[in-house]
Amino acid sequence: MSLTGVLRPGHVAIRVLELEPALKHYTEVLGLTETARDQKNKRVFLKAWDEHDHHSVVLREADEAGMDYMGWKVDSPATLKKLAADVEKSKLCQDLAWIPAGEHPGTGERFRFTVPTGHAMELYAEKDRLGNNCGTDGPDINPLPWPDNLKGIAPSRFDHCLLYGDDLDGTCKVFRDVLGFGLSEQVLLKADPGTMIGAFLSCSNKAHDIAFIRQPVKGKFHHASFELGSWEKVLRAGDILSRHQTSIDIGPTRHGITRGETIYFFDPSGNRNEVFSGGYIYYPDKPPLTWYDDSLGPAIFYHDRKINESFLSVFT
Amino acid sequence: MSLTGVLRPGHVAIRVLELEPALKHYTEVLGLTETARDQKNKRVFLKAWDEHDHHSVVLREADEAGMDYMGWKVDSPATLKKLAADVEKSKLCQDLAWIPAGEHPGTGERFRFTVPTGHAMELYAEKDRLGNNCGTDGPDINPLPWPDNLKGIAPSRFDHCLLYGDDLDGTCKVFRDVLGFGLSEQVLLKADPGTMIGAFLSCSNKAHDIAFIRQPVKGKFHHASFELGSWEKVLRAGDILSRHQTSIDIGPTRHGITRGETIYFFDPSGNRNEVFSGGYIYYPDKPPLTWYDDSLGPAIFYHDRKINESFLSVFT
Amino acid sequence: MSLTGVLRPGHVAIRVLELEPALKHYTEVLGLTETARDQKNKRVFLKAWDEHDHHSVVLREADEAGMDYMGWKVDSPATLKKLAADVEKSKLCQDLAWIPAGEHPGTGERFRFTVPTGHAMELYAEKDRLGNNCGTDGPDINPLPWPDNLKGIAPSRFDHCLLYGDDLDGTCKVFRDVLGFGLSEQVLLKADPGTMIGAFLSCSNKAHDIAFIRQPVKGKFHHASFELGSWEKVLRAGDILSRHQTSIDIGPTRHGITRGETIYFFDPSGNRNEVFSGGYIYYPDKPPLTWYDDSLGPAIFYHDRKINESFLSVFT
Amino acid sequence: MSLTGVLRPGHVAIRVLELEPALKHYTEVLGLTETARDQKNKRVFLKAWDEHDHHSVVLREADEAGMDYMGWKVDSPATLKKLAADVEKSKLCQDLAWIPAGEHPGTGERFRFTVPTGHAMELYAEKDRLGNNCGTDGPDINPLPWPDNLKGIAPSRFDHCLLYGDDLDGTCKVFRDVLGFGLSEQVLLKADPGTMIGAFLSCSNKAHDIAFIRQPVKGKFHHASFELGSWEKVLRAGDILSRHQTSIDIGPTRHGITRGETIYFFDPSGNRNEVFSGGYIYYPDKPPLTWYDDSLGPAIFYHDRKINESFLSVFT
Repeated sequence: MSLTGVLRPGHVAIRVLELEPALKHYTEVLGLTETARDQKNKRVFLKAWDEHDHHSVVLREADEAGMDYMGWKVDSPATLKKLAADVEKSKLCQDLAWIPAGEHPGTGERFRFTVPTGHAMELYAEKDRLGNNCGTDGPDINPLPWPDNLKGIAPSRFDHCLLYGDDLDGTCKVFRDVLGFGLSEQVLLKADPGTMIGAFLSCSNKAHDIAFIRQPVKGKFHHASFELGSWEKVLRAGDILSRHQTSIDIGPTRHGITRGETIYFFDPSGNRNEVFSGGYIYYPDKPPLTWYDDSLGPAIFYHDRKINESFLSVFT
Repeated sequence: MSLTGVLRPGHVAIRVLELEPALKHYTEVLGLTETARDQKNKRVFLKAWDEHDHHSVVLREADEAGMDYMGWKVDSPATLKKLAADVEKSKLCQDLAWIPAGEHPGTGERFRFTVPTGHAMELYAEKDRLGNNCGTDGPDINPLPWPDNLKGIAPSRFDHCLLYGDDLDGTCKVFRDVLGFGLSEQVLLKADPGTMIGAFLSCSNKAHDIAFIRQPVKGKFHHASFELGSWEKVLRAGDILSRHQTSIDIGPTRHGITRGETIYFFDPSGNRNEVFSGGYIYYPDKPPLTWYDDSLGPAIFYHDRKINESFLSVFT
Repeated sequence: MSLTGVLRPGHVAIRVLELEPALKHYTEVLGLTETARDQKNKRVFLKAWDEHDHHSVVLREADEAGMDYMGWKVDSPATLKKLAADVEKSKLCQDLAWIPAGEHPGTGERFRFTVPTGHAMELYAEKDRLGNNCGTDGPDINPLPWPDNLKGIAPSRFDHCLLYGDDLDGTCKVFRDVLGFGLSEQVLLKADPGTMIGAFLSCSNKAHDIAFIRQPVKGKFHHASFELGSWEKVLRAGDILSRHQTSIDIGPTRHGITRGETIYFFDPSGNRNEVFSGGYIYYPDKPPLTWYDDSLGPAIFYHDRKINESFLSVFT
Repeated sequence: MSLTGVLRPGHVAIRVLELEPALKHYTEVLGLTETARDQKNKRVFLKAWDEHDHHSVVLREADEAGMDYMGWKVDSPATLKKLAADVEKSKLCQDLAWIPAGEHPGTGERFRFTVPTGHAMELYAEKDRLGNNCGTDGPDINPLPWPDNLKGIAPSRFDHCLLYGDDLDGTCKVFRDVLGFGLSEQVLLKADPGTMIGAFLSCSNKAHDIAFIRQPVKGKFHHASFELGSWEKVLRAGDILSRHQTSIDIGPTRHGITRGETIYFFDPSGNRNEVFSGGYIYYPDKPPLTWYDDSLGPAIFYHDRKINESFLSVFT
C-alpha cells in the first residue's frame, strides 16, 4: 500500500444502457459473481472470485455509458479521515462529499471528490468480507488454490482503470502528492518533455492501480481491467469472448507500458473491459519509466507498434 | 504419413529481393541455422533446430519475392518413382521434370511438377541427415529435450505453406487422389456449397501440411509456417519481432481453422511467415470440418472474427 | 498412419475392482464422458471430448485390476483382413480370434491376438462416430476450438499405453514387422547393447502410440495416457487431482523419452493413468533415439534424473 | 511497502564452501549477473536482471554453508533511523550494530540485528542503481519487456527466504509489531492452535517476503527464492537444472501456501534455492490464511499432499 495508507482500487461504478444484457456480460462472459442488487437505483453489485470484499464492480442502468466513480480502500477509518482532510486542504478537487455508510451494501462511509480530469473518486475504510470460497475447513482454513465452479473468463480481481481527461497534471498531483501514489510510467511529448500525456500510477507493488491519458475531455472512461493469472488464460479469454460473439477491440497482445499481456473488449453498452496477466513488481523507489510520444505505438501495443484506431477515439 | 508414402513438407524455396537482409531475418529473428550456401545461384540453405535433414528453407535472391517451389519427402526411392508415375498418369500437372541429385546440397533427385493452381511441387526420397544436436553421448544418444544456444524465435520445424491460386479443385485432386492427402478442413460458399474456396490438406497427423485459398491468380505465396511448442513461445515470438521492428501482420491470435495459435509477420522482401503452436491431432478417417464463407472471419482469425485487410490482398 | 494402415490406439479396456468409484474417477476427475453401459458384463464405455469415435476407454468390473486389451483402429475393412492374415502368418502371436461386430457397442468386428509379452491387442475398422460437439451449425460445421461444459481434467484424447512384459523382442517384431510401426526411442543395456529393455513405438507422427518395458512378467499394465494441450493444463490437472485427493504417483515433470510433460496418478483400483502434453513430431525416416540403462533416470523422469520407487514396482 | 516504510528484501548473503563452483551455479545455471567482487573477504555480489539496485545476492566463501544475513531496503534514511530506534526499543533483538556505508559496494550504512530465531537481519536505505538494461534510448527510456542475452534460468528478482528457527513467536513479533509486516499465512498445531509452527510474512503485495518454520535450531537457512514470470519458465528451469545435473530437491509442483508454482534445488554447497511463479496479490487487510499441521502436506507441496523427506531435515 502507499505510505499514506491507500490499499487498492476497491470498486468501479459503471453505467450501462440496459441492466440485463450488461449483467449477462459481466457474469457469464467476464465471470463475476452478483453479490447484491439495489432495485430502487437499478444497481447490481458484483465481485471477482479472489476478492474478499463484498463487491468491486457496480453496474447502474443509465442513459449514457461511462464511469460514475472509482473507489479506493484505505487501511483504517483514521486514514480515511486524514486523507479526506488532506484532499480538502489541497484545494485540487471539487464536489467533496461524504456518502453515508450503507449507500453501497456492506460498505462504510465513503469520501467522494472529483479530480481535475473530471473523474469522481472515493475513499472508504470498511467493506464486508465475503471471502473467496477457497477454504476447505471454514473460511480461510486449508484453502484450495482456486475454487470450483468458475464461470466464463473468471478473473481473480478488479485491477485498475484507464481514464481520459484534460488536466492530467492536476490529477497526477492529487494522486502523487495527496494520496501518496508512485508514478511507475509516463508518456511525454518528445518536442516538449515537460508535457506529460500519459501517467501510470501505483499505490502498491503492481505496475499500475490507475492510469490517465491526456485528452481534451472531462471524466471519460477508457477501460476497467481485471487480472488473470497467465498468458494462457488470456488466450482462453479470447476464445470465450469469440464464442459469445463479444466485440473484441484488440489482442491478445502485450503492452509495452507495464509489460502486461492483454485483451480489450466491449460490454454491450460500449464500455471497454480488459483482462490481462503479467507485468513487473513495482517499488516506489524506482524512477518512472519514460516513453516519448514517438514511441506511443510500442508503448501501448508492443507487437503491432502502432495504436489501433479505436484506442484514442472510442471511450465512454 | 499418407498411405502413399508422402512423409512431410521437406523444403520451401523462397525468393527474396536481397540475400543479406533476408538471411539476417531468417537466422537472427526467425532463428534458423544456415547449413549451406550456393554462391553461383545466390542461394542459402537453412534448417530449424529440431529438423534432422540437411535443410528445409531455401532462400534465393531474385527480382521478385514469392515461392519457387515446395518439396515433399517421401519414404523411399520406390515411392518416389511410383508417385512420379502417378502424377504423370494423372495428366493433372504440368512442367514435369527430374532435378538431378545434388542440385540441392545433400539431396537426392527430385521430381518436380506444377499443380493446377500454378505452384511448383517436388517429391524426393533422400536428404542428408544432420541431426538436431540434442544427443549428449553421440548423435541420437541420451538426448536433451532442446539444444543450447538457440537464437531468435527458434521454431522446431518448417510446418506448412498456405498458397493462393485459381484452380483449387484441380490442385485438391492432385493432393487427394494422386498423393493421398486427407482434406482436414474446407471453406465452402454458403450460396453454392459445391464451390470450395479454401482447402487444408494433411499427409500426416497434423491438422495441415499445406493449404490453398482460391484466388484469381496463379502460383502465389501467402505464407510459410514454422512450429513452436507453446502459446507462450508465440508471445515470445511477438516480443522478438517487435524488438527487431519486424513488420507483424496480425497476432498473437487463434485460427478457427486448425485451432492453431499464431502470429503472422513479413520478411524484408514482403514474404509472409507464420509461427504457431497447437492444433489438434488429425486422422484421415475423420470427415473434413466445413466452414462457410459467411464464417470466414472466425475461421481465419477466431478472436477478431473478421479477416484483416491484408489477408486476402497481400501475398507474393 | 503406418504404411500398413494402422491409424491409432482406438480403445483400452481396463479392469477395475468396483465400477462406481472407478466411474466417478474417470468421469469427474479425469473428465471422460460415458457413452454406453453394458449391465450384463459390468462394462462402461467412455470417450474423451475431442475423440469422434464412440468410445476409447472401457471399464470392466473384475476381481483384479489391469488391462484386458488394447484396440487399434485401421483405415478399412480390407486393411483389417490383410493385417489379420499377416498376424496369423507371422506365427508370433497367440489366441487369435474374431470378436463379432456389436460386442463393443457401435463397433464392427475385431480381430484379437496376444503379443509375446502377453498383452491382448485388437484391430478393428469400424466404430460409430459421435463427434466432438464443437460444431456450431451442425456436426463438423463452423466448429469452436473447444466445447463448453468440460468437466475435470478433460483430456482431448486417449493417447497411448505403457505395458510391462518379458518377451520385448517378440512384441517389437509384431509391431514393427507385421503392423508397420516405427521405433521412435529405445532403451538398451550399456553392458549389452543387443538387449533392449524399453521400446517406444509409433504408427503416427506422435512420439509414441504404445510402449513396452522389459520386466519378467506377462501382460502387465503400467499406464494409460491421455493428451492435454499444454503444460499449464498439466498444472491444472495436478490441482484437480489434489482437490479430489487422488493419489499422484509423480509429477508434474518432464520425460526425457518423448520430451512429454507429464503427471502420473492412480485410479481407485490402482491402475496408473497419465495426462501429458508436448513431445515432438515423429517421422518414420528418423533412426530411433537411444538411451542406455545408465541414463534411465533422466530418460524416464528428466528433472529428478532418477526413477521413483514405484515406476518399476507398481503396475496392474 | 509496509506502512512503516520497509520496501523489500534487498539482499541475502549466502555462505558457500568454494567460491568458483558457487559462482558458476549462480551465474550460469541460475543466471544472475556478477556486479562486484571483494577479493579480501572472498565475496561476490550479484543481481537478477529485473532488479535495479547494485546487488541482491552476496556469496561468501566460508567453512560452512548457510545464510549470513538478509537485508531489507527501506524507503528513506529517516525510516532507517526510525526503524533502528524501534528495533532497539523493542528489546526483542540482539547484536544490534551499524555497518558503515561502503562495506557492501554501492550501499549506504546498514543497521544489523539478530531476531529471536537467530537470524541476522539488516535495514538500509541506499544502494546504487544499475538499472535493468531494458531502456532502448537511455536507462528507463522506451524500455523493452525483457533484455537480450539472458543466461540460464534468469529469474527477474530475488524474492524471499524461508528460514528455520526456534523462537518463531519472538521473530514474528519483530516483523509484525516493529517492522509492520502482515501475516499472510500461518501453520498452527491442530491440537494446540495457540502454537504457530509456520509464519509467512509480507511487507508488500506479494504473498510473502520472508517465511519461518519452527524448528529446534537457531539461524538456519531453508532456501532463497527467485521470481520467474510463468509456470512455463518453471519447466524451463527444471530442464536447465537437469542439463547441468544440478541436484533438484522437488518440483515442478505447486505450493498450497501462497499458491506458488515452484522448483527447489541445491547450489554446490548444499544451500537450497527456489525459483517460482504465481501466487496471489496480498493486502494487509485480509486475515491470515490458516493451515493446520494435519494439512501440512498439501500446504507445502499441494500435488503430492505430503512433505518430502528433505523438507524438514535438509537445511544449512
